[in-house]
Formats: sequence, C-alpha cells, structure tokens
Amino acid sequence: MSAPRSVHAVRFSAAAVGEQLTAMRGHAPLVQCLTNIVVAQWTANVLLAAGASPAMVDNPEESGPFAAVADAVLVNLGTPQEETVAAMHGVVRAAAVAGTPWVLDPVGVGGLLWRTRIASDLLALAAPALIRGNPSEILALSGVGGGGRGPESVDTAEDAVDVAMSLAQQHGTVVAVSGAVDHLTDGTRLVRVANGHPWLTKVTGGGCALGALMAAFAATADDPLLAATAATATYTVAADIAAERVAGPGSFAVALLDSLASLDPQELVDRVVLR
Amino acid sequence: MSAPRSVHAVRFSAAAVGEQLTAMRGHAPLVQCLTNIVVAQWTANVLLAAGASPAMVDNPEESGPFAAVADAVLVNLGTPQEETVAAMHGVVRAAAVAGTPWVLDPVGVGGLLWRTRIASDLLALAAPALIRGNPSEILALSGVGGGGRGPESVDTAEDAVDVAMSLAQQHGTVVAVSGAVDHLTDGTRLVRVANGHPWLTKVTGGGCALGALMAAFAATADDPLLAATAATATYTVAADIAAERVAGPGSFAVALLDSLASLDPQELVDRVVLR
Amino acid sequence: MSAPRSVHAVRFSAAAVGEQLTAMRGHAPLVQCLTNIVVAQWTANVLLAAGASPAMVDNPEESGPFAAVADAVLVNLGTPQEETVAAMHGVVRAAAVAGTPWVLDPVGVGGLLWRTRIASDLLALAAPALIRGNPSEILALSGVGGGGRGPESVDTAEDAVDVAMSLAQQHGTVVAVSGAVDHLTDGTRLVRVANGHPWLTKVTGGGCALGALMAAFAATADDPLLAATAATATYTVAADIAAERVAGPGSFAVALLDSLASLDPQELVDRVVLR
Repeated sequence: MSAPRSVHAVRFSAAAVGEQLTAMRGHAPLVQCLTNIVVAQWTANVLLAAGASPAMVDNPEESGPFAAVADAVLVNLGTPQEETVAAMHGVVRAAAVAGTPWVLDPVGVGGLLWRTRIASDLLALAAPALIRGNPSEILALSGVGGGGRGPESVDTAEDAVDVAMSLAQQHGTVVAVSGAVDHLTDGTRLVRVANGHPWLTKVTGGGCALGALMAAFAATADDPLLAATAATATYTVAADIAAERVAGPGSFAVALLDSLASLDPQELVDRVVLR
Repeated sequence: MSAPRSVHAVRFSAAAVGEQLTAMRGHAPLVQCLTNIVVAQWTANVLLAAGASPAMVDNPEESGPFAAVADAVLVNLGTPQEETVAAMHGVVRAAAVAGTPWVLDPVGVGGLLWRTRIASDLLALAAPALIRGNPSEILALSGVGGGGRGPESVDTAEDAVDVAMSLAQQHGTVVAVSGAVDHLTDGTRLVRVANGHPWLTKVTGGGCALGALMAAFAATADDPLLAATAATATYTVAADIAAERVAGPGSFAVALLDSLASLDPQELVDRVVLR
Repeated sequence: MSAPRSVHAVRFSAAAVGEQLTAMRGHAPLVQCLTNIVVAQWTANVLLAAGASPAMVDNPEESGPFAAVADAVLVNLGTPQEETVAAMHGVVRAAAVAGTPWVLDPVGVGGLLWRTRIASDLLALAAPALIRGNPSEILALSGVGGGGRGPESVDTAEDAVDVAMSLAQQHGTVVAVSGAVDHLTDGTRLVRVANGHPWLTKVTGGGCALGALMAAFAATADDPLLAATAATATYTVAADIAAERVAGPGSFAVALLDSLASLDPQELVDRVVLR
C-alpha cells in the first residue's frame, strides 16, 4: 500500500448535489442488488422511495446476464451463502464486461474470515465504482486492523481516512466511509457530508441501503465521487427531516421512506452540509 | 395459442365480494408461501392483517408434505435458488395430489431466462388455481414479448388481456393482470377492479402480497375468479383507505396493514369499483 | 421423561426485572442470530431498539467461529435450508465450547418432520440456555402431541406447563412457553408474565424476536430464568405501551420498536405483571 498522494479536500456545490438527485430520478435506474436476507426489503423500499427501481436478482444462473441489463449493481456481503457468492462472482465479471458500475459493501469484513476472502476475490476480478463501509470494514479491507465484531464499527471515520485514500488509489475506485460525518474519497479528492442522525444506526440496513442508493446515483453520474456524495446527501438529509417528526427508531424508518419520496431537490440543496 | 373464445365481461356484485371477505376471515386459511427473501415479511404481515395464517415452509424436505395440510399454496419466483426451486417442484406435485389450490406469481419471467424455464416446468406439472402477474410477466409466460427488466412492467394490463384469456383457457386457470385497473379472467369471463393507489408500486412486494391474498381467498371460494376478485378488491380498497391518511410510501405500507385488519365487509362493498 | 419434581412458583421482584434491562443495555450484547428469512429484519430491529447489537451470521464457514466472539446465540428453525442447518450445527458446537449461551426457538416443530429431527439433533449436541416456543412446539419437542400446523399454536400455555417443566429438567435449561400469559420454568421454578397484546400474534416474528431478546438478556444475567423473565417483561410491557397509541397491527409494530427504545426501567417496574 503506497502512501496517499497529495489530497485535496473538495466541496462539491450543494447545487451540483441537487442536480444529481433530479438526474437520478429522471433516469429511474434499475439497480440489481445482491444483498443479505436481513435488509433486502428495506433496501428495495429505500430505492423505490428515492425514485430508483430495485431488482434483487441474486442467483448464479441469472445474476450475470442481468448485470448487462441493469443500470448498476450492488454487492453486499451481509449474509453470504455458497450460492449467492457464486452469483456475486458472476455479476462482477458480467458488470465489468458490460461496463455496468458496481458497488461493494463489505459488511462484516475483518472479523469474519470467509467473507474477507470473498471481498478480496471480488476486488481481484474487477474494480468496483464504489466501496462503501464503516471504518472497521474499510481498515480490514485494506489489511489494516482486525475488523469489528460483525457489522458494528469500533473505529471512527477519521481514523480510516488515510487508509481509505490508499484503498481508493489502489483500486481506482471511490471509497465511502460511514460515520457521524461521512468521508468520501477517490484517492485524490476528499468530501465530507455532515448530515444524518444516530437513529440510522438503530435501523437494520441503515448503512446497507445507502450502498444501494450509491449504485443508483452511480448509474447516472459522470463523476463517481459526486454520485456517492449525492447519494449520501440525499439519504442523510432525508434522515434529518424524518428525525424531526418521530418518536423512535420504528417511526424513524417509516418517516425516512416518506421523506426520501418527497424530498425536494431544493430542500436537499438548502440542508446538505458539505465540508 | 388458440384465439380467445367469446368473452363475457361479468360484474360480480359488490355484496358477493364482501361475503368472500367474511368467509375468508371465518376460515382463517393456512397459506403456505414459497416466496422471495425481499417480500417474505411483508407477505406474512399482509396475510395476518387480512385474517389468514401464513406459513413460509419453503425447503425441499417439508414443503411437499406441508401442502397436504395447508389450505392454499403460493409459489412466487422472486429470488429462486436451487433449493427453493426443488421445494417448488415438490409443493406443486403435492398440492395437485391433495387438491390444495396453488397460485403462481411469475416474478421477473421473460427477461430472466432461468425462472422462465422454472415457470414453464411448474405449469407442466399441474395447473394452478390462479396466475397473478404484471402485464410483462403474463405476456412472457405466454411466449409473447420479451418480458420486463426484472419486476417492473413495461406494458399495461389492457395490452395483456387477450393473451391472459388464452393463457387462462390453455391451463384451465384464472389469470390476474395487475395495473391501474386490475384485469382478471378465467378465459371466458373478464372482471376489472378499478381500486388501488400508485403507492402500491412504491412498496416492495406490493403485488407479491396480493398473490398470497389470492391464495387465501382461493382456499374458501368455490369460484376461483370470484376469489381472485375479492382478494384484489380487499387489498386495493384497503390501499385506497390507507392512502387517504398518509404522507408517503413508508407510512402507506404501515397504514395498509392497519386498514386490512380493520376493513369492514360493508366498507368493502361500498367502495369497491367493479367494471 | 420423568415426572416433574416439586415446583415452586416464584415471583421475581419487578425491581430485579428492571435491573436486568439496565444491565443488558449497559452491556449492549452482540447477539448472533441464525433465523429465518421472514423475521430476520424485524428481529434485528427489535434487538437494536432494545439496546442490543444483532449480527445475522448464518453460514457454515463463519457461524461457528463467530459464536466464540458473540455474547449470545439464537437458533430459530423458521425456514431451514441445508446450508443454514449445517451452520446451526456448527454454531451450537462452538457455543458449547466457548460457553456462549444459546437459545433454541423450535418454530414449527411437530407438524414439520425435518425440523423436528433438526431440533432433536441440536439438543443432543449441547444444552441451550433457553428454549422458547408456543405450547404446540413445546409439546412436540417433548414428544407429546403432534404439533401445530406451522407456526400457529393449537394449545394454551397452561396445557404445556407440566411438559415444559420436564423438558427443562431433562436438558438442564429454561423453557419459555408463550401465550396470553407467558409461562417460564427452569424445571423447579415457575414464573408467569401477564403482559402483552393480541396484536403480537398479528405481526410476523412477534414471538421469534422475543427469542432473540432472551438471548440478549441471557448474555448478561447470572440466572437464565430471570433473563428470560426480564426479556419477556421488556417485550410485552413495550407491547402494552405501543398498543395504547395505535390503530392496527402495522402501526403497532412500528410503535413497539419506538417503545422498546424509549422504555424506562422504572416504567417497566411499574407495569410488569408477574404471577
């Protein structure tokens, strides 16, 4: 792992972020999700609410061919089984051939050895457009640190920024590190999004669905770093709005779907906090 | 595919539809669901709210024997894997022997080749009581058109009516085609239900759960076309009621469960729009 | 099966139950769940709302090693497949070696033969800290009665108390029998918790999530019977609070997550009904 090259903190304009939301909705991208049994429903509902079109095609027979039809692909390692892992290999190969952008969410990588190897194998097949994880997962994916205990992170996003930049350079990808402030980098540029609410950590799939939304935005954006930033902004600003109206994590999740569906691009522009 | 025989548009009385809801609740049918990982929870909750009893028995060892105990069976092709497909074959064979009505929901058939073959294989084993799909899926199941991109439909229900009638005649079954106006036919009769709300397309499993509800009604009704009509009416009228109270697709899904549970048969009679 | 030894009905103090909730939240136990595709999301959200940390690690490669890291393990037989059953065997063996408490939820045992054998095999490997089921499942697990039709129970908790006590003695475990009044026993002591709402039976996973919560409490408590009692009290008192505010089973499930998250230990103490 080489030392990070000189890094420039960039601040996309809020207006540019708002335009990405409008563009994503206008395109209504078909997002193929290979994800886990815990969050599949939530992920599909988040995509539908935001204006994308989910398709959970995750078997070895169909997932490769479908990647050529889909606008973007999500590979989430939450509950791998032999058959879904075979499908993941097929989808990554097919996405690479077809030029379909794919997002890797390395859930639980580090502490869990089988999926750590799966993630390495997938990265060796083809570079994803985006990698999204919590700090522990990003550190583990880079061979640094032992990873968290399951999906929980034991590090902060700030701890993982240097490693994230190296990882982004190594694979020619964008790396998004979740946290109270989300950190996103393509290896030379760094963006921080400071929206969001702690209740996102009390809804299962709170992070996983953001990976799917990044895939949706990556389908339309020319700049994957801007795509990841706009997805993060859309999701966390909608979370901010939802949190104002609710009494706990149950009603928060419901309100988050409502606010994703009704989020006006201008409201996104007004409320997003980019650093 | 032969040309449709002469078709008679029928209008079941609203009263007959209301009686079906009362009868279904009185029976509380045990509905065995072999469905996908995305909508399994939503489907079970819809059945429970409406007054039926779900049992997601979907492994090859148990699904056949259970079909003899269940009152109805749903086979939904949303996320097939080798093992669940083996279970589907077992359940269809056993349902045919036991005389248990089964419903086929051919999710994604057409664009996705493996499941298109699976659907054909299942139909060759035994005729379902009902087939429920969107227009693209119904066209594809009949060998017409290439199918949609995943679960999304690219055609309207009207486009698929003639094909649906032929398909119904061919298999001696009822075919329900979803849309802004739902079209249901047994090959000689045609019913249209004009209730429902666009938010049903923004909740994952919005259609899949209706397939399960059709199975619940088919367990008690003598006339499968009336069963499918009553299930569609119950679900879409409950959706109409739910949509009046809510702010978006998240709260809509929650309210739909509430309104399914509290739906009075008389309210169903008053609000259903049959054409 | 020997006749029950003399049984003493005990009443834990409400204060002791409240202390368990505080202790569980302070520890935020990592609960590994091998559960079914229908309730995985709901189970994870219940654990998160209550203050525990879920990890759905259910593949044969990782589930054993993870049991040594987890604070407690749930094995739920809802939708077994070959691969998850292999993972269940691995996790039970590893939990026994590591001293990690595990909970067995024998969903559908009795009427469904394959999983009845799976449950016996798991019990032969190592004794769980807790067994949680409905009366039909507990009777079937003891070789008494034919079991229910799927997850539904056809018996009352009272019917199953003697059998539950024998089962607890036989395996040196705690057995919790769900019902309008929950009955919990370690073979010599019996506790009854009289909170809860019928809508818990109208939310899929209403019982399954309680099994996971029992695992969370078992991770911190010295007395597994007290752990099971505190978990039941927490869940059913939160259900009581939720039911006061809502219009049906959909909004009830949402409010239950909210009330689990906001439940004050003192409120638990004030409202729990122990008999």
